[in-house]
Amino acid sequence: MPQVPLDELNRMNRREFAAALGGVFEHSPWVAEIVHAARPFPSLRVLYETMIIAVRNASDERQSSLIRSHPDLAGKAARDGMLTRDSAREQASAGLDTLSAQEFTAFHRLNTAYREKFVMPFIICVRRHGKDSILRQFEWRLRNDAPAERETALTEIFRIAALRLDQLVVGPDRLKVHGRLTTHVLDNYCGAPAAGVEIEFCEVAASGQSRTLGRMATNADGRTDRPLIAEQPIPIAQYELRFAIGAYFVRQKTPLADPPFLGVVPIRFSVADPEGHYHVPLLVTPWSYSTYRGS
Amino acid sequence: MPQVPLDELNRMNRREFAAALGGVFEHSPWVAEIVHAARPFPSLRVLYETMIIAVRNASDERQSSLIRSHPDLAGKAARDGMLTRDSAREQASAGLDTLSAQEFTAFHRLNTAYREKFVMPFIICVRRHGKDSILRQFEWRLRNDAPAERETALTEIFRIAALRLDQLVVGPDRLKVHGRLTTHVLDNYCGAPAAGVEIEFCEVAASGQSRTLGRMATNADGRTDRPLIAEQPIPIAQYELRFAIGAYFVRQKTPLADPPFLGVVPIRFSVADPEGHYHVPLLVTPWSYSTYRGS
Amino acid sequence: MPQVPLDELNRMNRREFAAALGGVFEHSPWVAEIVHAARPFPSLRVLYETMIIAVRNASDERQSSLIRSHPDLAGKAARDGMLTRDSAREQASAGLDTLSAQEFTAFHRLNTAYREKFVMPFIICVRRHGKDSILRQFEWRLRNDAPAERETALTEIFRIAALRLDQLVVGPDRLKVHGRLTTHVLDNYCGAPAAGVEIEFCEVAASGQSRTLGRMATNADGRTDRPLIAEQPIPIAQYELRFAIGAYFVRQKTPLADPPFLGVVPIRFSVADPEGHYHVPLLVTPWSYSTYRGS
Amino acid sequence: MPQVPLDELNRMNRREFAAALGGVFEHSPWVAEIVHAARPFPSLRVLYETMIIAVRNASDERQSSLIRSHPDLAGKAARDGMLTRDSAREQASAGLDTLSAQEFTAFHRLNTAYREKFVMPFIICVRRHGKDSILRQFEWRLRNDAPAERETALTEIFRIAALRLDQLVVGPDRLKVHGRLTTHVLDNYCGAPAAGVEIEFCEVAASGQSRTLGRMATNADGRTDRPLIAEQPIPIAQYELRFAIGAYFVRQKTPLADPPFLGVVPIRFSVADPEGHYHVPLLVTPWSYSTYRGS
Repeated sequence: MPQVPLDELNRMNRREFAAALGGVFEHSPWVAEIVHAARPFPSLRVLYETMIIAVRNASDERQSSLIRSHPDLAGKAARDGMLTRDSAREQASAGLDTLSAQEFTAFHRLNTAYREKFVMPFIICVRRHGKDSILRQFEWRLRNDAPAERETALTEIFRIAALRLDQLVVGPDRLKVHGRLTTHVLDNYCGAPAAGVEIEFCEVAASGQSRTLGRMATNADGRTDRPLIAEQPIPIAQYELRFAIGAYFVRQKTPLADPPFLGVVPIRFSVADPEGHYHVPLLVTPWSYSTYRGS
Repeated sequence: MPQVPLDELNRMNRREFAAALGGVFEHSPWVAEIVHAARPFPSLRVLYETMIIAVRNASDERQSSLIRSHPDLAGKAARDGMLTRDSAREQASAGLDTLSAQEFTAFHRLNTAYREKFVMPFIICVRRHGKDSILRQFEWRLRNDAPAERETALTEIFRIAALRLDQLVVGPDRLKVHGRLTTHVLDNYCGAPAAGVEIEFCEVAASGQSRTLGRMATNADGRTDRPLIAEQPIPIAQYELRFAIGAYFVRQKTPLADPPFLGVVPIRFSVADPEGHYHVPLLVTPWSYSTYRGS
Repeated sequence: MPQVPLDELNRMNRREFAAALGGVFEHSPWVAEIVHAARPFPSLRVLYETMIIAVRNASDERQSSLIRSHPDLAGKAARDGMLTRDSAREQASAGLDTLSAQEFTAFHRLNTAYREKFVMPFIICVRRHGKDSILRQFEWRLRNDAPAERETALTEIFRIAALRLDQLVVGPDRLKVHGRLTTHVLDNYCGAPAAGVEIEFCEVAASGQSRTLGRMATNADGRTDRPLIAEQPIPIAQYELRFAIGAYFVRQKTPLADPPFLGVVPIRFSVADPEGHYHVPLLVTPWSYSTYRGS
Repeated sequence: MPQVPLDELNRMNRREFAAALGGVFEHSPWVAEIVHAARPFPSLRVLYETMIIAVRNASDERQSSLIRSHPDLAGKAARDGMLTRDSAREQASAGLDTLSAQEFTAFHRLNTAYREKFVMPFIICVRRHGKDSILRQFEWRLRNDAPAERETALTEIFRIAALRLDQLVVGPDRLKVHGRLTTHVLDNYCGAPAAGVEIEFCEVAASGQSRTLGRMATNADGRTDRPLIAEQPIPIAQYELRFAIGAYFVRQKTPLADPPFLGVVPIRFSVADPEGHYHVPLLVTPWSYSTYRGS
């Protein structure tokens, strides 16, 4: 998707402007249309906040209509390929396009219960959650009363909008919508970064099922060339890093037991703050290791 | 199985003595019979070493016959229930009584190849190995030449004998045939032992498959009431301890992220020395942990 | 000092009994005399508690007289050699017999201020404190009101009595008056206890001055043959353990930088609970170490 | 001292050039004069290497004369204020301008012994060493034979020249003559960087004497705003970082023992590679800490 510079947006007429930003709020180009008058925007942040205010100032009806424009999660529209391109991408990011029959049933039950209680679809910024976390949010929010839940829905809509805007427009600033997950392997046996350590990066569901998100190896500085996750929120979920430490020390010709005490070292942790920086290093010898949330 | 005091053995006549110790060497009561003359034995160690010498001094034929008295691992005799009680128990300890079809085929192939090359059964002290380790030993030993392999077979027979003798006779001493695996959870957040931490203790096969060996919780001293493994060799294998750290800190009312950074902490390690003492502790806060081979 | 068995005490007449236990409360054999009637005592604890009750039930005058029988800390009586043997030993344990001129002046000032405010000597169970801690207690307690301070004085007298009783009488039980300070050096480079590591054990004053309390080396199990402190309270103070780690790894022929990254590793910590168990281990490689309050 | 751009040097005539670079080799402007012909220099490295070659190609006599132009360390010239500005600064950097009487005697003895054996002054790049390390080098090098020692003297002269050149000339590149010492405090109790931790940074002599090199506090990222040492070699010496951890946790309102288990945490380590990067972090809770050589 080509990005539009903020400068260019600032020079657009209302029609062009609405065409460019009409998708930031689901099926609701009116937000962009209202905001057009407030040009020029010095920063992405100001543009974003102006859009939020436009929604906040809209009539209850318009807000309700915005809320109701959202599709169900893993619902009929998804199955029938009737989602907006943005929604389709977002739902796929959390794996909602490949649910098991059992999961599908769970979502269906929750969608129905939610619609019955609140007369609106369940809205959540799925890019900030793994599947388990979405289901947990679903259960919790079903216990809300209607006004609290309407407010929660708007908050989630604003989060979705921030992410869409961030992907769409290049400005002098960035919205704070991204987290960062990094690692580092330090060899305390040699007192040096551990290079060439193979790492498998997985998401581990509450059910115990594990899905590989990536494989990489440490470079000369003991780090991965790129962060494990960056330029996106870190979905709230449980992760596991699996470090092939035994193979590393074998390559280093370190004297080892047979089999080595440490083969693959698994580090399992959960992310609760999708916009946070999680640094999860491994300090290791053939006989010991430690890890911590670093920065 | 009732244990015989060494004193009593020392007073037995040859027939009784051979009846009591005839099973120490598979189908070979002659070892006990020879050794009877050397009574009284001041210690289990002397009794054991006398038996070893008797085998070493026996004719090649007798040795070969001793070797050939051993059943195949996971072989026809096992399937048909034709094992000695000792052999049946030993093979079951490594899970050889519940092989998958694929594993059974692997054992069959190796047994056949081994018998063809060495004209004897593959003998290994199975109580010292997990299934993966037995298969690895099998592959390695197939590469031996005949004299080296005969020597290895005798060494394994002596290990089997030591374990049988240790279970059978109570003396003033113990044979050094047992290892010890322990753990300890220390809460570095409070500066105290972590009590009530639930632990799942598993064996993890090279295939990734995991078999639960036990579940326990730490006591007031942060230890388990009994060692994870004691009074037996620790089978050479890969293990995993899974500590329910998130639940522990929730019970302690420690302020935590939601979900907590650490939920279940897995510590995976391999044992290479079945008679060693492995102490594998966990030092933990809600945001960090370390482990090491302690003593 | 020969110890008396509780049995024997239980059989003594009043005169013998008071002779044996007359020193438990400073210059106050009347406590032992009263308590004699309550024989036989099944345990040290019951004997101790009976003595406490006798003091609690005594008249205000008698209590005041007991309090006033105590000498000043580092006062005139100490200089003139007029202390009871117990008091002399106790004051020496905290180094009060070797004060600098400046410290002597501080104690003199505090003693005078205290006597002026409370009309009694400052009483503290000195075996539970280092010099800095005594001075800190002195300053704090000067801020008490008279009734609170009288109660504190009694509490300290009871602590002194417990320690004296514990040294004097052997019973089926022990009073909980002792702490325990231990260490352990684990070599995470080799995965084994570190043997032969030389340790200097010091008390470090707030002024930065350091006093060596002992030198020892680790045994084959990485521990010291005896605890650093046991069979006494651990004085509330700051300590430092200095581990000669560089020399240890040189002896192990471990490849090291020149000079080694770690030479002498100092671990500095304070004890706040004189009756607690402090285990302060060192986990170390040539390039890293960690420590913690263990158990 | 104003720095000369390499460009400008490249345009200078021989006289100007020698005036600018004449001090790079002690009292030996002839090196610069020879090298002038090889202009223009694309980089500092090429300029430096050309100067080295000029010295290597010079006659034995000229080399000897270069060597003999160097002053004694902490010698008569230093006392009499007769050093070149460069030499005076260099000797002061290692504290050679403030020796105790005893140290002065040691240097005098070594200078004399060295001159007697080698008929030249002892030359060492003092910016790469602390006082202890200089004395150790002195002792070791006295055991060299004459050719080896002459070679060592030249190597040290080249190191001195590299540092002087690096300070004098700004080019498109840098000579690799600098190390870097950094720290980081991570609070494993809160799972966040520890801000506002006061640090005292000291050099600790073999004699135990400690000299404060700086005081700083950690910023919001748990780091110091500037490296402890940068833009210079890290002198080979023993250092100590003293972290005021107790005060930090008190400010955080963390529940603590009284006195806290950890007050000031000292981390003592030695640097062996003056051009290396030493990262020495502290991971800490109120009850535990660890450190390591990081990167």
